[in-house]
Amino acid sequence: MLSNSELEDILERVSSGDLSVQTALKYCQHTEDIGFAIVDHDRQRRCGFPEVIFSEAKTPEHSQAIARRLVEKNGFAFLTRVPDSTRDLLLTQWSDAEYNPLSKTMIVGKVPTKKTETSSAKVLIVSAGTSDIPVAEEAGVTARVMGCDIEYLHDAGIAGLHRILSQGERLQEAEVIIVTAGMEGALPSVVAGLVDSPVIAVPTSIGYGASFKGIAALLGMLTSCANGVGVVNIDNGFGAGCLAAKIVNSGKRDK
Amino acid sequence: MLSNSELEDILERVSSGDLSVQTALKYCQHTEDIGFAIVDHDRQRRCGFPEVIFSEAKTPEHSQAIARRLVEKNGFAFLTRVPDSTRDLLLTQWSDAEYNPLSKTMIVGKVPTKKTETSSAKVLIVSAGTSDIPVAEEAGVTARVMGCDIEYLHDAGIAGLHRILSQGERLQEAEVIIVTAGMEGALPSVVAGLVDSPVIAVPTSIGYGASFKGIAALLGMLTSCANGVGVVNIDNGFGAGCLAAKIVNSGKRDK
Amino acid sequence: MLSNSELEDILERVSSGDLSVQTALKYCQHTEDIGFAIVDHDRQRRCGFPEVIFSEAKTPEHSQAIARRLVEKNGFAFLTRVPDSTRDLLLTQWSDAEYNPLSKTMIVGKVPTKKTETSSAKVLIVSAGTSDIPVAEEAGVTARVMGCDIEYLHDAGIAGLHRILSQGERLQEAEVIIVTAGMEGALPSVVAGLVDSPVIAVPTSIGYGASFKGIAALLGMLTSCANGVGVVNIDNGFGAGCLAAKIVNSGKRDK
Amino acid sequence: MLSNSELEDILERVSSGDLSVQTALKYCQHTEDIGFAIVDHDRQRRCGFPEVIFSEAKTPEHSQAIARRLVEKNGFAFLTRVPDSTRDLLLTQWSDAEYNPLSKTMIVGKVPTKKTETSSAKVLIVSAGTSDIPVAEEAGVTARVMGCDIEYLHDAGIAGLHRILSQGERLQEAEVIIVTAGMEGALPSVVAGLVDSPVIAVPTSIGYGASFKGIAALLGMLTSCANGVGVVNIDNGFGAGCLAAKIVNSGKRDK
Amino acid sequence: MLSNSELEDILERVSSGDLSVQTALKYCQHTEDIGFAIVDHDRQRRCGFPEVIFSEAKTPEHSQAIARRLVEKNGFAFLTRVPDSTRDLLLTQWSDAEYNPLSKTMIVGKVPTKKTETSSAKVLIVSAGTSDIPVAEEAGVTARVMGCDIEYLHDAGIAGLHRILSQGERLQEAEVIIVTAGMEGALPSVVAGLVDSPVIAVPTSIGYGASFKGIAALLGMLTSCANGVGVVNIDNGFGAGCLAAKIVNSGKRDK
Amino acid sequence: MLSNSELEDILERVSSGDLSVQTALKYCQHTEDIGFAIVDHDRQRRCGFPEVIFSEAKTPEHSQAIARRLVEKNGFAFLTRVPDSTRDLLLTQWSDAEYNPLSKTMIVGKVPTKKTETSSAKVLIVSAGTSDIPVAEEAGVTARVMGCDIEYLHDAGIAGLHRILSQGERLQEAEVIIVTAGMEGALPSVVAGLVDSPVIAVPTSIGYGASFKGIAALLGMLTSCANGVGVVNIDNGFGAGCLAAKIVNSGKRDK
Amino acid sequence: MLSNSELEDILERVSSGDLSVQTALKYCQHTEDIGFAIVDHDRQRRCGFPEVIFSEAKTPEHSQAIARRLVEKNGFAFLTRVPDSTRDLLLTQWSDAEYNPLSKTMIVGKVPTKKTETSSAKVLIVSAGTSDIPVAEEAGVTARVMGCDIEYLHDAGIAGLHRILSQGERLQEAEVIIVTAGMEGALPSVVAGLVDSPVIAVPTSIGYGASFKGIAALLGMLTSCANGVGVVNIDNGFGAGCLAAKIVNSGKRDK
Amino acid sequence: MLSNSELEDILERVSSGDLSVQTALKYCQHTEDIGFAIVDHDRQRRCGFPEVIFSEAKTPEHSQAIARRLVEKNGFAFLTRVPDSTRDLLLTQWSDAEYNPLSKTMIVGKVPTKKTETSSAKVLIVSAGTSDIPVAEEAGVTARVMGCDIEYLHDAGIAGLHRILSQGERLQEAEVIIVTAGMEGALPSVVAGLVDSPVIAVPTSIGYGASFKGIAALLGMLTSCANGVGVVNIDNGFGAGCLAAKIVNSGKRDK
Repeated sequence: MLSNSELEDILERVSSGDLSVQTALKYCQHTEDIGFAIVDHDRQRRCGFPEVIFSEAKTPEHSQAIARRLVEKNGFAFLTRVPDSTRDLLLTQWSDAEYNPLSKTMIVGKVPTKKTETSSAKVLIVSAGTSDIPVAEEAGVTARVMGCDIEYLHDAGIAGLHRILSQGERLQEAEVIIVTAGMEGALPSVVAGLVDSPVIAVPTSIGYGASFKGIAALLGMLTSCANGVGVVNIDNGFGAGCLAAKIVNSGKRDK
Repeated sequence: MLSNSELEDILERVSSGDLSVQTALKYCQHTEDIGFAIVDHDRQRRCGFPEVIFSEAKTPEHSQAIARRLVEKNGFAFLTRVPDSTRDLLLTQWSDAEYNPLSKTMIVGKVPTKKTETSSAKVLIVSAGTSDIPVAEEAGVTARVMGCDIEYLHDAGIAGLHRILSQGERLQEAEVIIVTAGMEGALPSVVAGLVDSPVIAVPTSIGYGASFKGIAALLGMLTSCANGVGVVNIDNGFGAGCLAAKIVNSGKRDK
Repeated sequence: MLSNSELEDILERVSSGDLSVQTALKYCQHTEDIGFAIVDHDRQRRCGFPEVIFSEAKTPEHSQAIARRLVEKNGFAFLTRVPDSTRDLLLTQWSDAEYNPLSKTMIVGKVPTKKTETSSAKVLIVSAGTSDIPVAEEAGVTARVMGCDIEYLHDAGIAGLHRILSQGERLQEAEVIIVTAGMEGALPSVVAGLVDSPVIAVPTSIGYGASFKGIAALLGMLTSCANGVGVVNIDNGFGAGCLAAKIVNSGKRDK
Repeated sequence: MLSNSELEDILERVSSGDLSVQTALKYCQHTEDIGFAIVDHDRQRRCGFPEVIFSEAKTPEHSQAIARRLVEKNGFAFLTRVPDSTRDLLLTQWSDAEYNPLSKTMIVGKVPTKKTETSSAKVLIVSAGTSDIPVAEEAGVTARVMGCDIEYLHDAGIAGLHRILSQGERLQEAEVIIVTAGMEGALPSVVAGLVDSPVIAVPTSIGYGASFKGIAALLGMLTSCANGVGVVNIDNGFGAGCLAAKIVNSGKRDK
Repeated sequence: MLSNSELEDILERVSSGDLSVQTALKYCQHTEDIGFAIVDHDRQRRCGFPEVIFSEAKTPEHSQAIARRLVEKNGFAFLTRVPDSTRDLLLTQWSDAEYNPLSKTMIVGKVPTKKTETSSAKVLIVSAGTSDIPVAEEAGVTARVMGCDIEYLHDAGIAGLHRILSQGERLQEAEVIIVTAGMEGALPSVVAGLVDSPVIAVPTSIGYGASFKGIAALLGMLTSCANGVGVVNIDNGFGAGCLAAKIVNSGKRDK
Repeated sequence: MLSNSELEDILERVSSGDLSVQTALKYCQHTEDIGFAIVDHDRQRRCGFPEVIFSEAKTPEHSQAIARRLVEKNGFAFLTRVPDSTRDLLLTQWSDAEYNPLSKTMIVGKVPTKKTETSSAKVLIVSAGTSDIPVAEEAGVTARVMGCDIEYLHDAGIAGLHRILSQGERLQEAEVIIVTAGMEGALPSVVAGLVDSPVIAVPTSIGYGASFKGIAALLGMLTSCANGVGVVNIDNGFGAGCLAAKIVNSGKRDK
Repeated sequence: MLSNSELEDILERVSSGDLSVQTALKYCQHTEDIGFAIVDHDRQRRCGFPEVIFSEAKTPEHSQAIARRLVEKNGFAFLTRVPDSTRDLLLTQWSDAEYNPLSKTMIVGKVPTKKTETSSAKVLIVSAGTSDIPVAEEAGVTARVMGCDIEYLHDAGIAGLHRILSQGERLQEAEVIIVTAGMEGALPSVVAGLVDSPVIAVPTSIGYGASFKGIAALLGMLTSCANGVGVVNIDNGFGAGCLAAKIVNSGKRDK
Repeated sequence: MLSNSELEDILERVSSGDLSVQTALKYCQHTEDIGFAIVDHDRQRRCGFPEVIFSEAKTPEHSQAIARRLVEKNGFAFLTRVPDSTRDLLLTQWSDAEYNPLSKTMIVGKVPTKKTETSSAKVLIVSAGTSDIPVAEEAGVTARVMGCDIEYLHDAGIAGLHRILSQGERLQEAEVIIVTAGMEGALPSVVAGLVDSPVIAVPTSIGYGASFKGIAALLGMLTSCANGVGVVNIDNGFGAGCLAAKIVNSGKRDK
């Protein structure tokens, strides 16, 4: 995964004797095989943030083992969709771990604070109804862990349109807006029609019958008549938070 | 299809000799078999409007033959989804037939004017975009033929929300509102959140990709977070017009 | 959400000094932010009925808090899909609350009685089978709370067609008919072919296999060969009741 | 494909010298390989009727070649979904072939007449609307070719229910009833609720939007609340005709 | 639901005084309204068998009450998909009721034995795998209650084709064959290619992944390349048994 | 659509006499009704870019009329999915309009150049195969019109993974990456795993069979195991370009 | 299931008296009917491996009875998807049975070791994430039981591409590669683009929302842009293992 | 895409001066960028066969340009789904190119003959019906180009089961069997139950109604009750041929 110029540089240094063959070889190896998993220690450099542990379908022991390696390497580990059994096991080892019962996320160790410069980056997280709050919270925790300032606006669905319309200034001040909505999922379209910031739409599985566990909202968001909307998977608050952080950080980098 | 009391009444009159057996028998026969079709001459009495000819999948000759019988009986015939070949054949026989190229509807003969009393019943037909106008027009022509006053409001989709919000009075004055929309189909939810009238939602097949020829709009309308929305089939302007007329007329009847 | 003329009027009064700036400002604010929810106090004026609490996906405490604000404002609150835990909590505070175990609806406080004039408005609620009764009941309770006279006709499915045919008079006397049906969902088509009133079709999730939890019934109702049918979401008795009430009230208003 | 007893019998006769090895071998071979097809000459014995040529996706020459072999063997060939080009080619060779433009079926040669005994077997073919007639016709021609007496009842859909109700005697006299219907496809349920004969339901692709080219009708028929309904593929008039003939013949055989 | 000639006859007799108005009126009433259900006492006459109680979605008390009325009228009641609680309640009242734990069917009272003549009618019920036996059993019990001789052939799926091929005689001797199969559901096609009897195909929900709870089998059966196959709903053993009985009885009636 | 503070400001000025009622009224009206469309002249202020004309489902005359109003107001108009007939009509009026035959986009008039500061914002547009180029081009033209620097990387699909891997530097230098892919649509996952910039995934309808006109790619992108991916509708190059521009501009604004 | 030449040979021998009729008859019978199942004792000869017991939907007693017959015949039995109750029952009879808790497979008796020659055949089983390991394990156990050398490579998904890229040699040395993956299921495409061996793709039901329990992965694998990929059912590790063994053995046979 | 050991070897040689930096750099570059495409010249080494041109969605000029580069490099190019216009253009340049009108494949230049050793590898391609022949042919041409001996068996569908059963020896002699089938797609299950070779199942889009353009066949093949079946995309004869060749070659390699 080295670029051509990195590779050329390495080869030059090997050729000139500046770099030993063994060290050069290691430059191409960024993983740690722990049997049931290959921990990706290069991800922070590549993608701007270390590996995150999606712990829903892992045994508590597996989640714990991966978390331990990440804490050793990065000082902290971030887990999502944490089952109760995993939470309990991890609290045994890291009693000061931060567990969020709404979003079911967990932070072990200490997340390094971002440099001051990006502190003005603001992510606004809007939920259409009270039932969408858990997904909104997962998005919020994720964006915060990844260094963003966040703010919430709950229960602003389109059945009472003045609730969102009266928040024009907060909408316009946000750098990125995440909108979570179930049922017909029309709130992202409405928001995107009001602002010039990118909108991340998160369909939720709230609803019944023809909402088909989020499909109605998903299709509605994908076919939005408003522009500037990027959609993530149903209930994927984590993905929305990541994307928001990447957008915020992208604008801040020197490229 | 006679009610018990109608039946009892007929039997009483047959018993008393007031009614001949043959006449009584005819009371149960309201159809005319013309080989390829059974014309339903009882529909006006039962459903408030004569049979309408859905001519898309009929041969021009079949449509013409059925239209002829309906004109003889009711003075007029109403046809929807009229193919060009059918239109041409019918214009040969009824040169003053009224053909609407936008909605592809046709009226042969003269529709009787409704009594004055219902003239204040107002159906407002809203379209989300210019592309939804043909379906909106089919709804409008149908409601008008069935005796309603109609009005249009085109291109009022939610990407520019102030377009619909600025029409608050027209929305509130309507007795019934028909809303046609493709893509995510969110306009009916927005409208239903603004008024106390019933809203008839018509998903249109406008859009591409994940709009799946109207499915996204259909699901969005069915799962609307606003109340008081009744949904009809995709592109079914005719059905929306009928339902609007039945609602308007229902409120006007003495029951 | 003010119309142009309302806005013009307010501005005129501000201009003339009749209205203070602060009071004028309040005219545009009709919501109450209680943290996890924004209560919509303007809904009765706008939509003819206060906000209803869909309590299925809310915590009991959230439902209770919203109910309390609505009771303070309107004298009552109406809740649907009430979980047992929510019911128990609310009964602690409002021991005379009216809970309906069939429809799982709850009324806290006292619903104001409608003016006499509309008392003749009749909504007939038909169910195809005994299994459809809970959905029919949700529709009935909703319509009644919203001021309609209601009547039920249960177990009148098309496998024994004379059951519905023998009720011709009741069908014809209703101002609006709600029909709930699962499986192939054909009863609304049959009913709509017999009357001149609007029919609200509610697909239910009753059935197995290819009924796909109500999809077969939903598609059948949307593609009905009879006219004047408006469809709501699967199992959405509440939506059907709302729509019926809006139809009934629409015909009664002075517009 | 020989049964155990047939096989035992053959082996006995070979063992006793009554049957030569070569002749015995032929008893297991009932096919004729003509390169692009293996003609199944055993089908009449096995299934009661010779192979039928589904010619839609075959070249005219292929259809012709297979037809020729079947005519040689059985005196006739029956083709369905005949494209115009195939029809023209076959009419060149068999100028007296019987082509039905409605069902697009073709009979080459002479179908042997059935014995008198079964002449009373009656198949009634009902169509819901004029647009369903082509599929009904395919069913009818097929059942007739396979030796059934057939009768049609067209345009008897449920929007005007008295059309089918007034035909009670014809329905009750039929031994098997085939019902073709598009849109919500509810007519087979209604018919099955009126008779004690088996009903074969054929969904047609007539309709638009949520009829999804026959899916709505198909699901409706599969989930029918009435009993005694067997469903075939969308637009599969041929399959319905076959099944009807097998039912009729099954009751007539000595088993 | 009277035919024209029946109606004419009644009217004649009323006219001549042979029939009182009240008696004539009763001729049109064949139902019994017990509040939560309208018992259809005309079904035996119309459809050849009394109403059957689908008890899965009914309360035990409702099933019991309907069963009681049917036993009073017909001497027995037949229930399908009987929940344990319903079974227990019914056994309290009718201790000699016959409950089948495999098919979860129940017979209360005594089913009248059919006349001897039809005793030779044979329904063969084939299952593709051991897992399909419960559905096959529901079909078998149903067909037997409705007067058919039945026989089973279990675990004859196409992965070991000789298992079905070796049963050629049993297949050919059956008057109707019911085939239950999950997964790809190909067994009905294979069977239909071997016999001249009608085949009733029952897709079962056995399988995982892309079998989609019976959809793969359902589609496979609907698109069968063999002829003479009628399909019923997924897991609908009851429907298959009914259809088989109607086919058998249809061939036996004097029409 | 005014914020509370804007509204308060206006009211203050009306109160103080600084602002006339009529002028204040106009502040709430930003649309122009031209009969078949309501042109949204406020969109540039609200969303950062004027209305864009989706001309696929509009008559050439309608597109022309809307374009004329936008040119008058903004100096230019941008049209997407331009049919040949519309292109020809517009070229008659604006002979120097810029038509792109690959993306079927058209620019009438002169797009104002962005201020220098944002010139370093770079959008990289990657296509998986040659067949995805038209969608990639629509994205590129859109992003460019909206003020972004763009670059293309075509035919870099995962069947030959080194094609994308060898472009590590270009990937890392981009501020936003748009990835268009059909078939299994896995390229965005691969790219997102290599960079710390946001990735906009555009499924295309390229492929056959189980690609279901882009559904396979759409689902693959939504369920991506890599983070930081926002998905737009199938073939929606325009939406991707818009979102990229909003992301780029969002990072550049003073908020 | 005898070929023509086998049949001719048998007939010759019967004809010449070398073979008795009864023995010849047995040559066509390879099944054992044990009531609820027909054990297929010919499968090893036909398909290269004895019948395997899919025990998920069988009662423990049924699984036990079938296992007993297979052990008697072949010395061992192989069971998949073994429920706990079945495992416990079988361990009572065969205390040394080998149960794998990860794959939920069970081996009763002793699997015969393959001849040495094929020992070099290597099947590499790759999993995209830790959650896919159970399916990978089912594939591995199956392939091993069927005589293959197997090797695992876990957690090599494309979000960290270097994990799979660094394993180039292991990939190239495998004779067949099985790849299990959930979510977007892109790993098989990546692997197939790197090797010249056949790749067996197993979609898993890991993921949420738009992964639709494995459908996203399934579609992604079917529409792979890389060549040489064969797909099996969702979560079908057993099928993948079988196919791998058949591929390996196919290359080793003398044909 | 170099393995660790290849990389180590290169680095050693650079370190020792055996390899220049520039040459070492080239070892990582195997592609040729021709603007609209990146030709993958490494594919033969990696995957055993050069890049194949899927020309359906490419302009004739693009296909020609890519073909030219591949011919220069490998002596030949293989194109699939060749449109007529592309065929005509290529025949202009390469008049002796081999175009197959059935499979719409094209070979430009001369395919190198495989070494003798593999000549015994036999791929049998079975089609269920005459309509499946084009897909079977695409599979056959592909496998042949990739060095396999191929054989066809057409029209062997399960409606006449003896057609496939009588070919037992040919089935058993094949090393790999490709089975193409539309409609219910059951033939691969039947074949896999008869042999010990791997079976590649190709669903075709032949059929109508509930075959849903190949979905019924696809699902049937994925859920096959027989083992050893690998499925490819609908109508993907090319993919099946590739997979067959990879299987055949895999068994022949020295690994």
